[in-house]
Amino acid sequence: MDILKVTNDLSIKRSIDGGTEEQRQTVKEIIAAVRQEGDQAVIRYTQKFDGILLDDYQVKAAEIDQAYKELSKETISIIKEAAENIRNYHMKQLQNSWMTTEVDGTLLGQKITPLDSVGVYVPGGKAAYPSSVLMNVLPAKVAGVERIVMVSPVERKTGKIPAAVLVAANIAGVTDIYKVGGAQAVAALAYGTETITPVDKITGPGNIYVALAKREVYGEVDIDMIAGPSEIAILADDSAIPTEVAADLLSQAEHDEMACSILVTNSEQLANEVAIEVEEQLATLPKYDIASQSIQQFGRIYVTETIEESIAVINTIAPEHLEVLTVNPLSLLGAIRHAGAIFLGRYSPEPVGDYFAGPNHVLPTNGTARFSSPLNVDDFRKKSSIIYYSESRFTANAEKIASFARLEGLEAHARSIEKRLQSERKEGK
Amino acid sequence: MDILKVTNDLSIKRSIDGGTEEQRQTVKEIIAAVRQEGDQAVIRYTQKFDGILLDDYQVKAAEIDQAYKELSKETISIIKEAAENIRNYHMKQLQNSWMTTEVDGTLLGQKITPLDSVGVYVPGGKAAYPSSVLMNVLPAKVAGVERIVMVSPVERKTGKIPAAVLVAANIAGVTDIYKVGGAQAVAALAYGTETITPVDKITGPGNIYVALAKREVYGEVDIDMIAGPSEIAILADDSAIPTEVAADLLSQAEHDEMACSILVTNSEQLANEVAIEVEEQLATLPKYDIASQSIQQFGRIYVTETIEESIAVINTIAPEHLEVLTVNPLSLLGAIRHAGAIFLGRYSPEPVGDYFAGPNHVLPTNGTARFSSPLNVDDFRKKSSIIYYSESRFTANAEKIASFARLEGLEAHARSIEKRLQSERKEGK
Repeated sequence: MDILKVTNDLSIKRSIDGGTEEQRQTVKEIIAAVRQEGDQAVIRYTQKFDGILLDDYQVKAAEIDQAYKELSKETISIIKEAAENIRNYHMKQLQNSWMTTEVDGTLLGQKITPLDSVGVYVPGGKAAYPSSVLMNVLPAKVAGVERIVMVSPVERKTGKIPAAVLVAANIAGVTDIYKVGGAQAVAALAYGTETITPVDKITGPGNIYVALAKREVYGEVDIDMIAGPSEIAILADDSAIPTEVAADLLSQAEHDEMACSILVTNSEQLANEVAIEVEEQLATLPKYDIASQSIQQFGRIYVTETIEESIAVINTIAPEHLEVLTVNPLSLLGAIRHAGAIFLGRYSPEPVGDYFAGPNHVLPTNGTARFSSPLNVDDFRKKSSIIYYSESRFTANAEKIASFARLEGLEAHARSIEKRLQSERKEGK
Repeated sequence: MDILKVTNDLSIKRSIDGGTEEQRQTVKEIIAAVRQEGDQAVIRYTQKFDGILLDDYQVKAAEIDQAYKELSKETISIIKEAAENIRNYHMKQLQNSWMTTEVDGTLLGQKITPLDSVGVYVPGGKAAYPSSVLMNVLPAKVAGVERIVMVSPVERKTGKIPAAVLVAANIAGVTDIYKVGGAQAVAALAYGTETITPVDKITGPGNIYVALAKREVYGEVDIDMIAGPSEIAILADDSAIPTEVAADLLSQAEHDEMACSILVTNSEQLANEVAIEVEEQLATLPKYDIASQSIQQFGRIYVTETIEESIAVINTIAPEHLEVLTVNPLSLLGAIRHAGAIFLGRYSPEPVGDYFAGPNHVLPTNGTARFSSPLNVDDFRKKSSIIYYSESRFTANAEKIASFARLEGLEAHARSIEKRLQSERKEGK
């Protein structure tokens, strides 16, 4: 792992796969077909792409019971405990609706309402990600969303959704689960079919076809962010333990060849020791190929003179995950401006938050923590402004408002105000 | 204005202009040129499209002083009072950062930080919209954004930004103002030039080139929503006054041929009277052409049996603006689920909120109030999760977390946890 000097270009931006023209065309065709033909198109594309002929594709209660039986009691209990932690954390994000009370009887306010329905996409593929189910479903549940639908492709080998995913969905409180994936599943969530009632928002990660389909239906429904490649930055001083720093960098690198792992430190000795340790630990990783490519392409160690300079580097990078491994990590919290999730101290390595502690693991990637937030309860609720003007407040301000409207050349706006004054006069009030 | 029966299709969706292939190509070229050449490209495109040769295009203090002189004292005072009301309302949206305190020393939290910088686009054209300046700038200001930049094209005739726009920007607390518009202004905000330092988020309305440019730079920076055509729905019973209802419908219709005005009522008599009154008032409007086209294409009156049915219609439409003109409007607030802004009672016609009351007038259009919110302070701040696990919490949960990581096939994640246990053993703790 190379040790670099801090330069002007600290950018970690990696290009997000925008798909080929052919892929975009395919996705458009699939969506159009599902809009027109409903279930028939969903079934046809699932047979074509996943090699599975679906009949009734809604998951039954018996299949969920079966999934529980396939998991050990310990595994179920860990998923339940994680779910409980995630629920508790997100409960603290709940905002109340509010109204002002003003002496003249005027009320101004903000009403907060959950979305009616949400669809969560859970990718298939080789591994099952029950943590992704919990992290997407529970904020919606806590937000008060009544109908939370999950879609996920089945494993080709077994014809089933993995047991851990089904159990996590059940624990999190998913309303309905459908055994479909790909662009056809996204289209079904957005426009509805005979089987699936359409939803208001679609969240969750997926392959390029899923990402393109989400972009395509955006506006018809809401979507979460299109996640880019993942990254970790570690801010450390000479109190950090090199073996632990190296292990944490590698835990990010095993995700994806495009993942990015960065150490920023004011300790040259730590930098040297971590560089060696990364190579050593890498050698014994099951995901050696992925992790070594990631480290080679996007692994970086920056050495600065002072810890303040290190913090400035972190704020420029705006990492998705930030670990602070310094002698007094909490004291630096105020100076950190841009990071998706901040893991403070030796006993908070990233996997603590990925699975268990409670905060969401769906985080702004690729430097977008400058302006984006972790997935949270507010993403599943929306605000409505409330205006209730009293007669006296209205009368005192009517001419000012009409005058502002005319300043912008909007005469009908002014007349809407003045009609009230005229009617009053007519009524002799 | 036609009186319609309630049917299954209450959709108010109007297509959003996605631009032609040629327009998209032009916008891509402009952005590429500004990225490469900076100010030189900004100046060249401004000369080409706006017919103005810029020299130094930052607005000077003297120009702002001059703008104040061009407005009447009354106008300045109305803009100031509106700004004060808007600021006060948005102050109530401020959320605090929080941390939990737990007996074992663990801290979990959510840190809320303003964006570093925001760019507000203010369209030129025939009319000046100082209200749009206030509504975009003040939430960012209240959020704590340090640098708020405004861009706006000059009037061809005068070579200036309209006085009311400059004064509103100054009152709202804009940091810097630049006399540029179009896709070149959006590109300059996103990527920066010699004159403009890049920003983290771009908000504000604009023509098709501005909208396409915002879509194009999205990801590099954040953007607000791409607004669709505007609409009002009025929920009324027989206590509503037909002349006022008609005036309010027309105040929406004068905005745009694509604007949509809908009355939903359980009173057939009101429906009939409003239909006649709309035609009468329409005849004398300065913007007759626009308003009559809007009413003809998108004006609707729905009559229902009961007020509950009327509310159900409203929730299906999810209007941008909702006026409630019933005998007891506040009692219906709980039943209204989807609306951008809710105007309650006779003394709260829409223009009260468009200009003056305090809530934002940038609202979710075209039915997107099902899942979107008015522009608000949260749009200019972002969250970071905080995780600080104590040693005892970590030790108690380490094996569970490692086990969850292995369930997902992520061995390096498990090792990042277990390294902490090993090091402790080595250190003999």
